[in-house]
Amino acid sequence: MSKPFGPLPPEFAGQSGDLVIGGRSANDWVSEYGSPLFVYDPAIVAARVAVFRAAFPAVDLHYAIKANPWAPWLAAVAPLVDGLDVASGGELANALQVKPAAGISFAGPGKRDAELEAAITTCATLNVESAGEARRALAIGDRTGVTPRLAVRVNPDMELKGSGMKMGGRPSPFGIDAEQAGAVVREIVAAGAEWRGFHIFAGSQALDTTAIIDTQAATLALAARLADEAGKAPPLVNLGGGFGIPYFPGDTPVDVACVGEALSEALAARASILADSRFAIELGRWLVGESGVYLTQVVDRKESRGETFIVVDGGLHHQLAASGNFGTVVRRNYPVAVAHKMTADGAETVSVVGCLCTPLDRLADRVVLPHADVGDVIAIFLAGAYGLTASPTAFLGHPIAGQVIA
Amino acid sequence: MSKPFGPLPPEFAGQSGDLVIGGRSANDWVSEYGSPLFVYDPAIVAARVAVFRAAFPAVDLHYAIKANPWAPWLAAVAPLVDGLDVASGGELANALQVKPAAGISFAGPGKRDAELEAAITTCATLNVESAGEARRALAIGDRTGVTPRLAVRVNPDMELKGSGMKMGGRPSPFGIDAEQAGAVVREIVAAGAEWRGFHIFAGSQALDTTAIIDTQAATLALAARLADEAGKAPPLVNLGGGFGIPYFPGDTPVDVACVGEALSEALAARASILADSRFAIELGRWLVGESGVYLTQVVDRKESRGETFIVVDGGLHHQLAASGNFGTVVRRNYPVAVAHKMTADGAETVSVVGCLCTPLDRLADRVVLPHADVGDVIAIFLAGAYGLTASPTAFLGHPIAGQVIA
Repeated sequence: MSKPFGPLPPEFAGQSGDLVIGGRSANDWVSEYGSPLFVYDPAIVAARVAVFRAAFPAVDLHYAIKANPWAPWLAAVAPLVDGLDVASGGELANALQVKPAAGISFAGPGKRDAELEAAITTCATLNVESAGEARRALAIGDRTGVTPRLAVRVNPDMELKGSGMKMGGRPSPFGIDAEQAGAVVREIVAAGAEWRGFHIFAGSQALDTTAIIDTQAATLALAARLADEAGKAPPLVNLGGGFGIPYFPGDTPVDVACVGEALSEALAARASILADSRFAIELGRWLVGESGVYLTQVVDRKESRGETFIVVDGGLHHQLAASGNFGTVVRRNYPVAVAHKMTADGAETVSVVGCLCTPLDRLADRVVLPHADVGDVIAIFLAGAYGLTASPTAFLGHPIAGQVIA
Repeated sequence: MSKPFGPLPPEFAGQSGDLVIGGRSANDWVSEYGSPLFVYDPAIVAARVAVFRAAFPAVDLHYAIKANPWAPWLAAVAPLVDGLDVASGGELANALQVKPAAGISFAGPGKRDAELEAAITTCATLNVESAGEARRALAIGDRTGVTPRLAVRVNPDMELKGSGMKMGGRPSPFGIDAEQAGAVVREIVAAGAEWRGFHIFAGSQALDTTAIIDTQAATLALAARLADEAGKAPPLVNLGGGFGIPYFPGDTPVDVACVGEALSEALAARASILADSRFAIELGRWLVGESGVYLTQVVDRKESRGETFIVVDGGLHHQLAASGNFGTVVRRNYPVAVAHKMTADGAETVSVVGCLCTPLDRLADRVVLPHADVGDVIAIFLAGAYGLTASPTAFLGHPIAGQVIA
């Protein structure tokens, strides 16, 4: 009995014969750069950016670099976006290589003093996650003589419905509860820091267009209410992101044009205290997830008790999420293809397993694919976000995958 | 409402005041080597080895290095065991630094030709996982003029009941179905390779003593049957491993003495074709899992809507399994302590979260612990196996954890 796999990204779904990424066939890429290999196509990111710009003409676009922070990739994506959002001192240092500090903001719980100091002294925006962190940042500002640029990350009192990861409306390690945020802003302003505004992130990996629209409207209302409480207009409101991409059978994409239209209306009707504020949407997965393909060569084919296994030279050490072991409860199949048989009908039911000596390393479970032989290349799609850096690369001592920009 | 956490390993459960690892307090370790830090105590491994030797006087002890392959650690553990089991060319190279090839065996699906050749030319034992792999190995033997030392990994026709990961009795990427194993042995012998025996691994992380006893007996019977079919006595039978350790509330340790007694009886009554065979048990987690403690310092304390969060400078990028995101369906709490308050009664219900900007990064969920302040050290136990190398260390760009041998 076979199981379905998720939909291929639009750029690949219509292809026939050889899988082509950025003008070259998957087999070509592997011939030149070896296997396993991540190929990232910046043209796909540019296409997503164009969709965003058309939908949100008055909103800044930030890239959450945690989705794929590979330095050459970051250099390729940075010019396409207005800001970079980072989550550690390491990411901050990398972002500063490709973007002025004025376009960088740093969020994340548990920032060490050294990280706070790096953000403050480089003049990046620091999203404070607790009253305690705000006070540590102010103290570092005093000590270093540099005025901190502080935004307040808010743990909203509503959540993004239908999101894969809920991050609001409940107790949270992220942000300051909405109930206290106004007071923290007043404390920051009174201490003489530069207050940059609010960062309000209600969830991620949401595919429900209506839920995103409702959440953005609620976020805008919350920002206005908090600004009133703080007695000061926020220079910038980061509305969060949370646009998902379809991974699994039945998933459908977010209707971004529709979200943009609703947000334009909401912005047109916004409270007067937000009249001069800028707005940003922060995206990672939606921006780059579909641009990457993980290519891995077949090492062995074997039959065992009626099941056919395609054993590849890659595995969960490069693409943990595709194995169903990272933040998912039920294992489902990522979109997958035999790279030189894009039009061929499925001919057999196979499981694609990685080379790791653990039953967890299953990249596709009983999917129907065209026949694949030893040496053929298997493509696992949606490898552009939370791929290599979100995987245990040292596990079992195999070589790390290559990465290349198409 | 609080949730329980798992039992502390016996060496730590009885401690009072400061947590002491290898004669030094956890705070001392962190003062000298920084935070986050893995501390591994070889005395705990030596104690487990002593238990093993007493229980299995006639059985070789192999270490599955995937559990913790850190080179200095491997050098410390290698002298305590009879063999090292590796799962990649990378692990093979590391094992050869500390053990002669005669004591090394290499198992794992999807071995590339270069890995087969490395095993053959260094004279390590190669556990072949499919008929196709056996043929590739024989061809490499012909080409290089080195006689391959081949064992046959068997996908048994029974499984280890109650094991965390079932690996037998069903279609599997691991090993050759028992039904075909005899034929492959004959093929190997006919081709002039040195046949080393069987590797039969029915599951791992089992805590059910009776199930382990039954599985070992069944494995022994299967080895005898396959040897009869092959018409040749196996020099070595690797009986697998699968001894688990208690991670979660209610878990109890394997009664290893009892398993040893039963295996001694089974060996005494074994079929005559196995009369001159050696036997090995391959252990990773059971041998080293309890020897490691992950220490991480508190960066922030925050209250959010009635929940208290202890935010630490470590997280799932170092200890993925403790966050419940690696091979577990239901998230449960690993054993945890405030490192300098081992005797103190729990004073508050807290969640210990890592520094990663993702809701997945929760190391302990609503546990009752003594009060911990910023700067205090939190200890997460059972960090000796499948810790740092089984975690996405590059995720979000934080520094990698230190490691030290006590």
